[in-house]
Amino acid sequence: MDIAAAVAAARGLAANLFDTLRRDSIDEPGVTRDPYGRGEQRAHATVEQAGRDLGLKITRDAAANLYMTWPGRDRQAKRIVIGSHLDSVPHGGNFDGAAGVVAGLVTVAALRRRGVTPARDLTVMAIRAEESVWFEVSYIGSRGALGLLPDGALDARRRDTQRPLGDHIRDCGGDPDALRRRARHLDPATLAAYVELHIEQAPSLVEAGKAVAICTGIPGNVRFPDARIEDATDHVGLPRRFRRDAALAGAEFFTRLDAVWEEYEARGVWMACTIGRFFTDPATHGLTVIPGQFRFSLDIRAYDETVLAELERAADAIIADIERRRSVRFHVGTRARAAVGHVDPAIVAALESGAASLGLPAMKLGSPASHDAAAFAAAGVPAAMLFVRNRNGSHNPREAMEIDDFLSATTLLAWWLEERIR
Amino acid sequence: MDIAAAVAAARGLAANLFDTLRRDSIDEPGVTRDPYGRGEQRAHATVEQAGRDLGLKITRDAAANLYMTWPGRDRQAKRIVIGSHLDSVPHGGNFDGAAGVVAGLVTVAALRRRGVTPARDLTVMAIRAEESVWFEVSYIGSRGALGLLPDGALDARRRDTQRPLGDHIRDCGGDPDALRRRARHLDPATLAAYVELHIEQAPSLVEAGKAVAICTGIPGNVRFPDARIEDATDHVGLPRRFRRDAALAGAEFFTRLDAVWEEYEARGVWMACTIGRFFTDPATHGLTVIPGQFRFSLDIRAYDETVLAELERAADAIIADIERRRSVRFHVGTRARAAVGHVDPAIVAALESGAASLGLPAMKLGSPASHDAAAFAAAGVPAAMLFVRNRNGSHNPREAMEIDDFLSATTLLAWWLEERIR
Repeated sequence: MDIAAAVAAARGLAANLFDTLRRDSIDEPGVTRDPYGRGEQRAHATVEQAGRDLGLKITRDAAANLYMTWPGRDRQAKRIVIGSHLDSVPHGGNFDGAAGVVAGLVTVAALRRRGVTPARDLTVMAIRAEESVWFEVSYIGSRGALGLLPDGALDARRRDTQRPLGDHIRDCGGDPDALRRRARHLDPATLAAYVELHIEQAPSLVEAGKAVAICTGIPGNVRFPDARIEDATDHVGLPRRFRRDAALAGAEFFTRLDAVWEEYEARGVWMACTIGRFFTDPATHGLTVIPGQFRFSLDIRAYDETVLAELERAADAIIADIERRRSVRFHVGTRARAAVGHVDPAIVAALESGAASLGLPAMKLGSPASHDAAAFAAAGVPAAMLFVRNRNGSHNPREAMEIDDFLSATTLLAWWLEERIR
Repeated sequence: MDIAAAVAAARGLAANLFDTLRRDSIDEPGVTRDPYGRGEQRAHATVEQAGRDLGLKITRDAAANLYMTWPGRDRQAKRIVIGSHLDSVPHGGNFDGAAGVVAGLVTVAALRRRGVTPARDLTVMAIRAEESVWFEVSYIGSRGALGLLPDGALDARRRDTQRPLGDHIRDCGGDPDALRRRARHLDPATLAAYVELHIEQAPSLVEAGKAVAICTGIPGNVRFPDARIEDATDHVGLPRRFRRDAALAGAEFFTRLDAVWEEYEARGVWMACTIGRFFTDPATHGLTVIPGQFRFSLDIRAYDETVLAELERAADAIIADIERRRSVRFHVGTRARAAVGHVDPAIVAALESGAASLGLPAMKLGSPASHDAAAFAAAGVPAAMLFVRNRNGSHNPREAMEIDDFLSATTLLAWWLEERIR
């Protein structure tokens, strides 16, 4: 049985896992798998049971990440981790994150069916709390495993429960005190590679008519999770020369940042800029009141640290100019940063030759989104990613990945793994 | 005793009324006198008692407006109404509206003290529900009195209680069925004049160093009380060419409207443009989600109907352009309109000569804000307004009118009334 057939034979396993995950987290519209909460817990239980059914060795770490290991002939050899996350944004889609974990289990099933016995440990990792919308800390599970959680992260509060991350981790059987001491479960020196399969979160593959992409890089970001603009609330009739309109200042900031993006794009430099929260306060705003308070979040991302630094300076310069011209004050608040995630060129080359040998028309694609793979890359682990074609974007209920595309990408992952662990 | 001394003798009456009104409606920060609710009711009770203490005849109409009448020698002669409103915005200031009602009572007390017996009825009117932030219907009390409430107004819901206006009016002893039939309590043909004293809501008098202004006109407006921009919610990583960002579309709309305003201002044409509500939904927005929904309110105002129509066309053209370029949809929703309020030139001229004869340095000033006087003017009643210097704007708790400035403006009002009713 060739590798594609071996993966196809696990189609039922994949479909069942996706169905169960969806059924357990339905929260119309879409699904909600809240990190270190009920939604993510149920997903972990489902995946853990699937790992046991495959005979994998189950362990957890201080961040309550789940490791499902197929022991290799040489237990001392550097191991390979195939992973992704199981949490979702509120009312998100079923495949964002979960596809990578299911792909890991399908790969194990396919390689077993091929009669492979691995030379080194192969671990399928279900990572916690990747979606930063909840705690506004990125890569909680993966950085927790690597002993790299930043100062203060455990005190971040989940936006709905308002409880600190540390308490949530303890609820799920983790050990926040060990994380605070930066005890690491994964030593980068013991890892041969981290590979993550993920749905594409933009329609580039749909546009190109291809099922699979090999990732060329993961952007770093600069974030203002909770910025404010403040000035006097005033009456609707106030003449222009007296106004200090916080919402208008916000509007100008966003419009000018978008113009900066347009320029970079025209020069062929990849970046993205998103203001996800952008709002006057519904408790106090009104039709006839000039807003004296405005809040926003900002995420700027790029593949190049130099570009990121330029963009942060550009944002600061626009803010200073608006403050001066419109007599308002910006309070940017905490700035969060994630480093650019560089992929391992040897794994990328191997995946390319795999695609060629399988006759799979895979394209190369920069990841516009952040992923746990970037945390592994930042820790010095050779990292790579595969993207699966997906309609309608992600972080929304209309996300739509075809199981055939998923199996194509998983076949490439299994091909590479078999080469690597044989 | 001259007129200024007669008004000054009622300083205690004014100060007591303002103190009681504030104490009864304190809602830190500021005061809240919710229309057809507890706040406005208590203010009406206070003012009604003051009217009774002055021996005025008390009546109410179907909209529960309060009329306090000093009967004239000729009860058939056209009467003069001195009025303003007693409601406030949430957490607003104590003087916005109330100053005009208190000025009416102080004027009666001063003219009594001067031994005046009026030739015609003089009515101090405490108007209901002027602040459109609550029901998003303008001039409810004054238009109700004039039988001019628009279709559907009685079904508008108050933003906090979510109950319809008609129910609120009934709670306060009014008769919404009569209002629905457009029964009118005030026949414009029986009114000689409507004059309203109000705090200035911008700092033009502060800037000019003057205590009092005579109004030269009240702007009309076009409003979109609840507009929406809709498109797909997407993931933060989506490349620029795929984005259909509702919040960015809102930001561009606001920024371009502000540029239109800048042009009009450069040409010396008065207008104002306010987006009071401007927001992504706090229940669903997030740091890493491109907003697929955005909401805003819009108020555009001008002294000239032609300018208003031009501005509405300009807003529509900007919307059409943004829809095309950014692939989003604007849903403007209901459009509300208020006509330009023209002041009576004869009353303005009389007030100017009064200011000259009193040695009061009053300036002429267009009203940037809407007022009940505009509803009277629209009904064909000769209308006029006086503004009192006020620091820190209005619709906020920092509003600050000096009692001396209030007494100066009230002296001019009393001077004019004495001339007119002697």
